[in-house]
Amino acid sequence: MTADGAPGQVLSIDAMGGDAGVAVTIEAVRLYLARDPDVRLLLFGDTAAMRQAIGDRPLPHDRIELCHAEQVVTMEDSAALALRTKKRSSMRLAIEAVKEGRADACVSAGNTGALMATSRFVLKTVAGIDRPAIAAMIPALGGHTLMLDLGANVDSSAEHLYQFATMGSILARAIDGPSRPDGWLPRVALLNIGSEDIKGNEQVKQAVPLLQGSALNYVGFAEGHEIYTEQVDVVVCDGFVGNVSLKTSEGVARMVSHYLREEFTRSWWNKLVGLLARPVLMSFRSRIDPRQYNGASLVGLRGVVVKSHGGADAIAFANAIRIAQLAASNRVPDMIARQLAATLDAA
Amino acid sequence: MTADGAPGQVLSIDAMGGDAGVAVTIEAVRLYLARDPDVRLLLFGDTAAMRQAIGDRPLPHDRIELCHAEQVVTMEDSAALALRTKKRSSMRLAIEAVKEGRADACVSAGNTGALMATSRFVLKTVAGIDRPAIAAMIPALGGHTLMLDLGANVDSSAEHLYQFATMGSILARAIDGPSRPDGWLPRVALLNIGSEDIKGNEQVKQAVPLLQGSALNYVGFAEGHEIYTEQVDVVVCDGFVGNVSLKTSEGVARMVSHYLREEFTRSWWNKLVGLLARPVLMSFRSRIDPRQYNGASLVGLRGVVVKSHGGADAIAFANAIRIAQLAASNRVPDMIARQLAATLDAA
Repeated sequence: MTADGAPGQVLSIDAMGGDAGVAVTIEAVRLYLARDPDVRLLLFGDTAAMRQAIGDRPLPHDRIELCHAEQVVTMEDSAALALRTKKRSSMRLAIEAVKEGRADACVSAGNTGALMATSRFVLKTVAGIDRPAIAAMIPALGGHTLMLDLGANVDSSAEHLYQFATMGSILARAIDGPSRPDGWLPRVALLNIGSEDIKGNEQVKQAVPLLQGSALNYVGFAEGHEIYTEQVDVVVCDGFVGNVSLKTSEGVARMVSHYLREEFTRSWWNKLVGLLARPVLMSFRSRIDPRQYNGASLVGLRGVVVKSHGGADAIAFANAIRIAQLAASNRVPDMIARQLAATLDAA
Repeated sequence: MTADGAPGQVLSIDAMGGDAGVAVTIEAVRLYLARDPDVRLLLFGDTAAMRQAIGDRPLPHDRIELCHAEQVVTMEDSAALALRTKKRSSMRLAIEAVKEGRADACVSAGNTGALMATSRFVLKTVAGIDRPAIAAMIPALGGHTLMLDLGANVDSSAEHLYQFATMGSILARAIDGPSRPDGWLPRVALLNIGSEDIKGNEQVKQAVPLLQGSALNYVGFAEGHEIYTEQVDVVVCDGFVGNVSLKTSEGVARMVSHYLREEFTRSWWNKLVGLLARPVLMSFRSRIDPRQYNGASLVGLRGVVVKSHGGADAIAFANAIRIAQLAASNRVPDMIARQLAATLDAA
């Protein structure tokens, strides 16, 4: 077990988080272990419940460890309450395993507010970062785009936007670097508006010189629709804007799916055509399948913490584990700390 | 010709605006005149070009008037340049027709910045409004949602958000009122984020008491995905956020369409299935057809001005004319001025 990116990584899993709880996380663990032969997993939760979920299909005992946690953070718990009263929860213990060096990264599908607050409290943020940002991959034509912040920081200053850009660039390199040429630097863009003679708000305007003067591959502004193109690799924005943009996208995708389903079930003829078109439609759906984009990183912490969607199924949760593994093996927190320290020194 | 909502309304059309120019606007005029038997149209532009576009299919001469304009505002003209040097442009003259009471509303597919600046200069804003907001209908499950501001005002204060809510409510009533029960009050929501323990930015928080204390049907916060549901009729947000949200939606819709097309042309079998599914797919497309949502209102002016998308075709442009007609016949600017004056008096 090492924390230096060599084979033999250990990841800690909050097995109790998410709407479907332990059944989904155990199934995700099964999928992930089959996919990645090198990693070991510490599973935090109610051991009886975990054993029941494992049932008569045992997991390789040399690659998992069941770690008992008497408490569970619920979706209704406030961040403050979870922090104060749930010190023996599966979430807290999974994060503490990272702090103590027993794990290289943590994954949880639990309550976002509690995960954020507990991660900050236990792991602390890197120097110069007040509050971590939330970063996630979203589907784009011909690939995907990393976007941040997705809702942790509202009223972000120009300095915050610059930090998001730095953190996003490092994370995108960790996730996509393996499939790119050596020395690949993600193209970083600032989310802005262009429809009017007013271009951008104050924070965006002030962030431009910071980005232009940085070592990042800053490529200028991106408008909302460009998130979904191949033009950029990282899109940086205030958390309010990012969250609205992400949720808006989900709303559009859901409306489109709903109408498509409705049209293909409107009459017996349409249903027949739908049956014929099923493989085509399935292939279409797989290309925008949100499960392959599951796993939002809490960047800016002194450790890797990945949030899986509360409603994630096993395939989606397994993807969040993959994101955590990539961030940990590329030592994203160290890289962020180093790059921000260099900036602070230069200032 | 009256400006009081009675039959016999007159609308002024900037016939030269938009990417395709006069060919599209003349065809749109033809479509619109067939649909609405009461309205008369003043068409501003190069009369020779307009006559050529009309060709040998004459428009009813008692319902249109060709008004010559020597100049055209181009898409490249800055707002300041258009305002200073294009005083005889089709856009400027169409707006002036509203100012002079010769028309009840104006429609242009020209340069948004120039249209905004010229409208403000010629028509002025109603008392208490510094800069008009841009409002448009967007498709939602089972109907549509009016959203504003879509990019005219960035860094909007709580007071601005309150004004957007008031203007949006009045405009939504003008457009949708005819198909609703008497006394229908649109449900107005503030766009916000809910994923974190931080709820909203400062402006949104401060706008809540203003909206709660108003005569509007304020229903609370909406998250990004709720724009696309039946939960709300009007969604209010800062222009930066609204523009990003709108453009993001366009990006998602375009990506989805692209993938759908790609899947249905991937092989000869898929193409065959696509041919069979064509009527179903066409019906699906028609439900999210952006043309039926074309026509963004510049609200807060002392007159009705509607912006058609630069790339609009005749069907889309005709829809923008319909939006202008509804706003004018419901005297939206008067209603806005009255409601805002009442608020100012009460303060």
